[in-house]
Amino acid sequence: MKASSLIGLIIGCVGIALGATMEGSQVMAVLNPSAMLIVLVGTLGATITGTSFESIKAIPSLFKKAFSPDVPDLNKRVTELVGYAEQARRDGLLALDEQLGGIEDPYTRKGLQLVVDGTDPDLVADVLEAENDAMRKRHSAATQPFEKAGGYAPTMGIIGTVFGLVHVLSNLSKPETLGPSISAAFIATLLGISSANIVYLPIAARLKQLSQEELHFRAMTLEGILAIQAGDNPRVVQEKLTAYVPPALRLTEEAAAAAAKPKQEAA
Amino acid sequence: MKASSLIGLIIGCVGIALGATMEGSQVMAVLNPSAMLIVLVGTLGATITGTSFESIKAIPSLFKKAFSPDVPDLNKRVTELVGYAEQARRDGLLALDEQLGGIEDPYTRKGLQLVVDGTDPDLVADVLEAENDAMRKRHSAATQPFEKAGGYAPTMGIIGTVFGLVHVLSNLSKPETLGPSISAAFIATLLGISSANIVYLPIAARLKQLSQEELHFRAMTLEGILAIQAGDNPRVVQEKLTAYVPPALRLTEEAAAAAAKPKQEAA
Amino acid sequence: MKASSLIGLIIGCVGIALGATMEGSQVMAVLNPSAMLIVLVGTLGATITGTSFESIKAIPSLFKKAFSPDVPDLNKRVTELVGYAEQARRDGLLALDEQLGGIEDPYTRKGLQLVVDGTDPDLVADVLEAENDAMRKRHSAATQPFEKAGGYAPTMGIIGTVFGLVHVLSNLSKPETLGPSISAAFIATLLGISSANIVYLPIAARLKQLSQEELHFRAMTLEGILAIQAGDNPRVVQEKLTAYVPPALRLTEEAAAAAAKPKQEAA
Amino acid sequence: MKASSLIGLIIGCVGIALGATMEGSQVMAVLNPSAMLIVLVGTLGATITGTSFESIKAIPSLFKKAFSPDVPDLNKRVTELVGYAEQARRDGLLALDEQLGGIEDPYTRKGLQLVVDGTDPDLVADVLEAENDAMRKRHSAATQPFEKAGGYAPTMGIIGTVFGLVHVLSNLSKPETLGPSISAAFIATLLGISSANIVYLPIAARLKQLSQEELHFRAMTLEGILAIQAGDNPRVVQEKLTAYVPPALRLTEEAAAAAAKPKQEAA
Amino acid sequence: MKASSLIGLIIGCVGIALGATMEGSQVMAVLNPSAMLIVLVGTLGATITGTSFESIKAIPSLFKKAFSPDVPDLNKRVTELVGYAEQARRDGLLALDEQLGGIEDPYTRKGLQLVVDGTDPDLVADVLEAENDAMRKRHSAATQPFEKAGGYAPTMGIIGTVFGLVHVLSNLSKPETLGPSISAAFIATLLGISSANIVYLPIAARLKQLSQEELHFRAMTLEGILAIQAGDNPRVVQEKLTAYVPPALRLTEEAAAAAAKPKQEAA
Repeated sequence: MKASSLIGLIIGCVGIALGATMEGSQVMAVLNPSAMLIVLVGTLGATITGTSFESIKAIPSLFKKAFSPDVPDLNKRVTELVGYAEQARRDGLLALDEQLGGIEDPYTRKGLQLVVDGTDPDLVADVLEAENDAMRKRHSAATQPFEKAGGYAPTMGIIGTVFGLVHVLSNLSKPETLGPSISAAFIATLLGISSANIVYLPIAARLKQLSQEELHFRAMTLEGILAIQAGDNPRVVQEKLTAYVPPALRLTEEAAAAAAKPKQEAA
Repeated sequence: MKASSLIGLIIGCVGIALGATMEGSQVMAVLNPSAMLIVLVGTLGATITGTSFESIKAIPSLFKKAFSPDVPDLNKRVTELVGYAEQARRDGLLALDEQLGGIEDPYTRKGLQLVVDGTDPDLVADVLEAENDAMRKRHSAATQPFEKAGGYAPTMGIIGTVFGLVHVLSNLSKPETLGPSISAAFIATLLGISSANIVYLPIAARLKQLSQEELHFRAMTLEGILAIQAGDNPRVVQEKLTAYVPPALRLTEEAAAAAAKPKQEAA
Repeated sequence: MKASSLIGLIIGCVGIALGATMEGSQVMAVLNPSAMLIVLVGTLGATITGTSFESIKAIPSLFKKAFSPDVPDLNKRVTELVGYAEQARRDGLLALDEQLGGIEDPYTRKGLQLVVDGTDPDLVADVLEAENDAMRKRHSAATQPFEKAGGYAPTMGIIGTVFGLVHVLSNLSKPETLGPSISAAFIATLLGISSANIVYLPIAARLKQLSQEELHFRAMTLEGILAIQAGDNPRVVQEKLTAYVPPALRLTEEAAAAAAKPKQEAA
Repeated sequence: MKASSLIGLIIGCVGIALGATMEGSQVMAVLNPSAMLIVLVGTLGATITGTSFESIKAIPSLFKKAFSPDVPDLNKRVTELVGYAEQARRDGLLALDEQLGGIEDPYTRKGLQLVVDGTDPDLVADVLEAENDAMRKRHSAATQPFEKAGGYAPTMGIIGTVFGLVHVLSNLSKPETLGPSISAAFIATLLGISSANIVYLPIAARLKQLSQEELHFRAMTLEGILAIQAGDNPRVVQEKLTAYVPPALRLTEEAAAAAAKPKQEAA
Repeated sequence: MKASSLIGLIIGCVGIALGATMEGSQVMAVLNPSAMLIVLVGTLGATITGTSFESIKAIPSLFKKAFSPDVPDLNKRVTELVGYAEQARRDGLLALDEQLGGIEDPYTRKGLQLVVDGTDPDLVADVLEAENDAMRKRHSAATQPFEKAGGYAPTMGIIGTVFGLVHVLSNLSKPETLGPSISAAFIATLLGISSANIVYLPIAARLKQLSQEELHFRAMTLEGILAIQAGDNPRVVQEKLTAYVPPALRLTEEAAAAAAKPKQEAA
């Protein structure tokens, strides 16, 4: 399901809130303004210092991506590429030119455009791999703020708590306020650890996973494009690309044939 | 023994439960509902956020795999592949065609099918290595939820405990409940650290180890298939593949010959 | 924005200071001379021991670099290199000789100089990659002091605090000074964690990120120079180099053409 | 000295026991049955879960290996290989056949056997590198239980201590037993940290170091075998192999000549 | 400056000692015999277990190396190698033979000896790279004891402290000694953390940095030797090698020419 990250976030928050309430805690005490200033703003500051405004500005769109990602459909792409391989074998590589306009995925389109233009195969591989490499670097830079925030937040929580304890200990004149003051000091720790482990780190892990899936998807596409250019037998193309599909998702041969048909006819 | 992970899990639990009981603790106190909500549901939520529902759904089958894995029999596979090498040398590669139906392992079958089809050796290696690479990625993705849970669980335990302490410290009016309250707060820590170190992390380590064994098994198979295609002398095939078998498990030459015989005759 | 690191640093400090003040703490208590001696001088000493005076001397210029970095303009470089590719195609590689004086970036100039001199392409790639490799090592050595300081500072803080506690505990004769003394001991921890997480580690992360951007920039430049030497079609050069530009920053074809025009005319 | 690990273990234990006794502690208190159950059996269980019975069964022989390792004699191997190179140059590769029976090291024997059989040089390198690779994987799997135990033991200690504290805090009715009870609870921590840092982790480090030495030894042997097969000048073989010997251990030329003589005469 | 590590060590110690004295602590209390036995001897034992006596015996010479390293002079080596390149171009490679005796650096001498002997370029690269690789492994093994000690020392400190606390808590009969006893227990922690962070870890970092500098120096030398053998134009050799010199240290062309002159004349 696409919204798994959002649902996971809700499950985590509800589980902790419910458990804490059952213990008798007032969960809303976490929303302590001074703790939030130290932990959230401190983490934000440290994260900006270590990355850049551009990275910070991209955060909302990354949240959206994590909460509602495009799921790559490996089987559909295999069918599509095998279809092009068949057409190229039948009518020549140039025949793919008319298909180009109808290809949604810019990566596939760019690759086939290069193939149709008669570019050298090594050069096609170079250009497409440079695209993948650049995407990998971009994705890795994009998860940085979440990973860094996941590292800074707990320490900011400890800074908040130690500040609180220092304050409490230097004013021992009113022993009756000792407990509540120490209690308040620990709110910062709570906020720091919770935000890191419920939000920042899981989102970073999710983005990393999505990036790997997309790179796997592109690696398969690249393999297919190069096979089409090499004039491989469509059955070999199918064999090669199926290796990228997890066994559990692989279509039976009949299903694959059925899926391929409309494509071929349309071509 | 196949069930080592299950037995290890039982040994670990029994050891800790017995030791704690000897100290005078009531082990069942760990099954505190609020602590379980915070630690188990919190960990589940963070793990779902960071991976996906698919990964979570695969967990029961992964537990089963860890508790009762298929142990790859390296010697049997060597004998099998050397048998094919002998037949291919004697009767040509095409003679392997009739054997294909009887091969249980889909990886070996796919490889030999490609060889029988007269596929180019580089292409055979490419397709089979792509399979291995995809399997490696799949396995690595499959251990993620366990590794992530092993990382989140102790922190969820600390969150639960700090929540408890914050609650205790802000209500110091009843000092006689102080001890038991703090005691209850530490149950969450106990649950978090225990679940991570007895279940999540060891299972992740076990799955990783099983994955490495399977990859090693496949690497040996791939080496054998390529040697068969290259028409290598069966003795050289034997020599090459034996390098993959740990010395302690290597058959003596006589045993190897005996093991190979029925195969050859059947062929 | 260029000054993001400085602004991040200020946001972090203000957030923590404000939050701590709201809790009632006196933020300036952090500026405790004995804590500063232990944490700041101790960290400095450990960092000098582990690196060298040269690395320490470079710190001010690295702060300046982190706070006001040169932002590489990928599109401008693409346009520039495509312009050289066009001229080289039209008038031959030697025609680039007159342009060399006007090239600001020493890396591009060195590369094109080698090309104009008729150096072997492999040698051009070797020399330029050696430059990149040496730069990568230099940058990695330059971030070391910040990373090391980020690791030593919290431990120096703990050393300071434990020293304080040891002192307090061995003189329990005056219980009324116990609180303030323990409080003072924790200032060292506060100083150690804060300096590491607000200054040292984020600056190290920022420098690492800037280094990666510069290496990416140079990789693109190298690709372009080699393509120019190989006499690639300017459109292919454009295609190759665009792969290095993040999609969000890519110029539309018209904009690219417009940007390229003055260059071409000037040429 | 071969027994350095055993002596190191004894030094570590004696140092800690002596220091603790000087402080007034009763060192034998560490041998608390409940703490041992939790820490040692808990660690054993988690380690079995994460590896396998085979790995656990190999532990005694690994202890023996760490405590009394075979020290590879690089100079002797160089002299031996240079001797074969001389003979091969003088009398041809087949002349090595009679030497094969007298070679103790199975790796060298397997390699020279392949050379004498006239196997293709690439194939010799492949087979021998597969052996090394498999050995590297075996060694890495063999150190796993020690590394894992070194990771689990301290946490098991903390589990034991928290169990103890939970028990103590929930029974505050007898304040006079409070100190001794908390004291007993900390025994588990002591046992966990000590076993990890005095036994498990150092032994794992030692095994890893021995593995690297053996791989280095084999890499040198492989280089020598390939040089013999290539018919290299014995002086070049000597030069190549000496690069693998640490300068401090290198023989002077006279010593090398003297060492080589008996060999040559025997040949 | 060469003595930076020693000066850093002194700065660190003085900073901490001064700061602690200002707090009122008696710094010399750290030299507690029982704490020293546990921490220093325990760390020594664990380090010997995990490495070997040879590694331990090398420690004094490594301290000397860290405190007074040979600083590689990149520019001088460039000038030297360019000089050989010029002579080789003018008078042939054999003319270098008479220079060999005067070369101080054994690595350069070995390389040029191989070149003069007419060894195959690939073989020269192989032998010299094997030297570098072996040196890298030796250096990495040499820093092991310091890194390991830096890891064990803080845990030994905790072991000492927990031993002390266990002792204190099990003897609560004399409450007036409670403070000083706990205070004494923490000395072990102090000693463990301080020794790791002021001595072991910084020295390990320094040795690693020196190793990288030496490897960089050798990589440059190797590049130069291969260029001389290939008969490269001295200007190209200069260009290639300058890439290894940090821009800040690069000589202007005049200075380079001036530096090269005496060499050429001598040649």
